[in-house]
Amino acid sequence: MRIAELSRRTGVAVPTIKFYLREGVLAPGERTSPNQASYGDAHVHRLRLVRALVEVGGLPLAAVRDVLDTVDSAERGVDKTLGTVQNAVITHAAKPAADDDTPDPARTAAEEAVAELIDDMGWQVGTDHPSARALVSVLVAAEGLGHGRIAGLLAPYAEACTRIAAVDLDYVAAAGALDDMVESVVVGTVLGDSILTALRRLAHVHESGSRYHRRPG
Amino acid sequence: MRIAELSRRTGVAVPTIKFYLREGVLAPGERTSPNQASYGDAHVHRLRLVRALVEVGGLPLAAVRDVLDTVDSAERGVDKTLGTVQNAVITHAAKPAADDDTPDPARTAAEEAVAELIDDMGWQVGTDHPSARALVSVLVAAEGLGHGRIAGLLAPYAEACTRIAAVDLDYVAAAGALDDMVESVVVGTVLGDSILTALRRLAHVHESGSRYHRRPG
Repeated sequence: MRIAELSRRTGVAVPTIKFYLREGVLAPGERTSPNQASYGDAHVHRLRLVRALVEVGGLPLAAVRDVLDTVDSAERGVDKTLGTVQNAVITHAAKPAADDDTPDPARTAAEEAVAELIDDMGWQVGTDHPSARALVSVLVAAEGLGHGRIAGLLAPYAEACTRIAAVDLDYVAAAGALDDMVESVVVGTVLGDSILTALRRLAHVHESGSRYHRRPG
Repeated sequence: MRIAELSRRTGVAVPTIKFYLREGVLAPGERTSPNQASYGDAHVHRLRLVRALVEVGGLPLAAVRDVLDTVDSAERGVDKTLGTVQNAVITHAAKPAADDDTPDPARTAAEEAVAELIDDMGWQVGTDHPSARALVSVLVAAEGLGHGRIAGLLAPYAEACTRIAAVDLDYVAAAGALDDMVESVVVGTVLGDSILTALRRLAHVHESGSRYHRRPG
C-alpha cells in the first residue's frame, strides 16, 4: 500500500509516518519508484505499536527505539527479553531521583526496608534492580516530605502485585509464539501500568465516597 | 532563614527556588530589606512537596500548581478534595488518547467492557470519570494493536485495586487533620503510583524467573 493508505489504516498522519521513518522506528517501505514506496501489514502493525507506546505509554522516542530493538531481537528467551524490555521502559518512563552516594540515614533506612520486603516476599530479585532502586528513591523522597510512613504500604502493595504478576505472566504465556510473547510483554507492561493506575483511581473514588460522603438509605 | 539556607535544607538550587517563586508555586518570603527575604518552615515543607511532585511524580508545573491550589483550599471535605486532586493528577500525568466521537465498534465495545466492570465491582463511579475514559482509550489502543484480549486483565486488576484502595484510604485517614489528609492524598496518589509500578516490575522479574529460567535443585 502507499503511504496515504498506511496513514488511513493507522490514523497516523503522513508527516508523522515520515518522521518515524527518518528516526528509524519504522522500517523503510519497498521502493517502487524514486519517489514512492510500498508498505505492508507489518508496517501497519509496527506503526500501531509505536503509537501505543508513545500516546498511551507516554514513552519518549528513545525509549520506543530501545523497546523495538528488543522486540526485534527476541531470540534471547522470554526471561531475558522481559528483563530488557522492562529496563527500557523503566529507565525512560519512570524518573527515579538521581542516585546519591552521600551517606544518608534516610537512604540507608529505605534500602533496608526494600531489601527486607524482597526477602519477606521470597522474591528472587536483586536489590540493585532498577525498580528496587526506584523504590528506594520514592521512599527517600517520601521521608523528605515527612511521609516516611508510606513505607507501611509496601507489604500490602507487594501482596497485590504478586497476584497481578501471575495474571500478567499468564497473559504473556497465552500469546504462544516467542515474538508474540515479547510483544505482549511490551504492550502488557506499558498498557498494564495505565490500566492499573486508572483502576486504582476508580477504586479510590468508590472507597472515598463510601467512607466520607454517601450515607446508607 | 535566608534563601541560601532554604536551598541547603531542601536540596533545591537557589535559581530553581527563584523560578518557583516567579511561577507562584512557592509563596514569597517575608521582605527583610529591598533585596532580601526571610523564609520559614512552611517554605521548606512546600518546596519538598513541589520537588516530589515534579521529580518523583513527573508532573509538569501546571499540574503542580493545580494540585497546590487544591491543597490550599482544603475546606471542601475529603471526598471532594480527593476527587479534585485526582483529576489534576490524572489530567496532567496520564495522556489518554484524545476522545474520538466517530462511532467506532472498538470504542463502543471498550465502553461496554468498562461499564460492565464498574457494575460487576459494585463501584459507585460514573463511566464519565476521567479514569474510566482513560481506561476506554487504553482498551481501544490495545484492540488496535491486536491485543484486545488485555481486557481479560480488568477483573483481576480491579480486585487487586479494591484491596489497594482500602489500604490507601487508611493511609489518608491516619493523617488526622484535614489539611494533612489532603497532602496525604497528593503524596499517596503520585508516589503510590511509582511504588506500585516498581513493585509490579519486581514481581514480574520473580514470576518470570520462576516460570522460564530457574530450575529447582
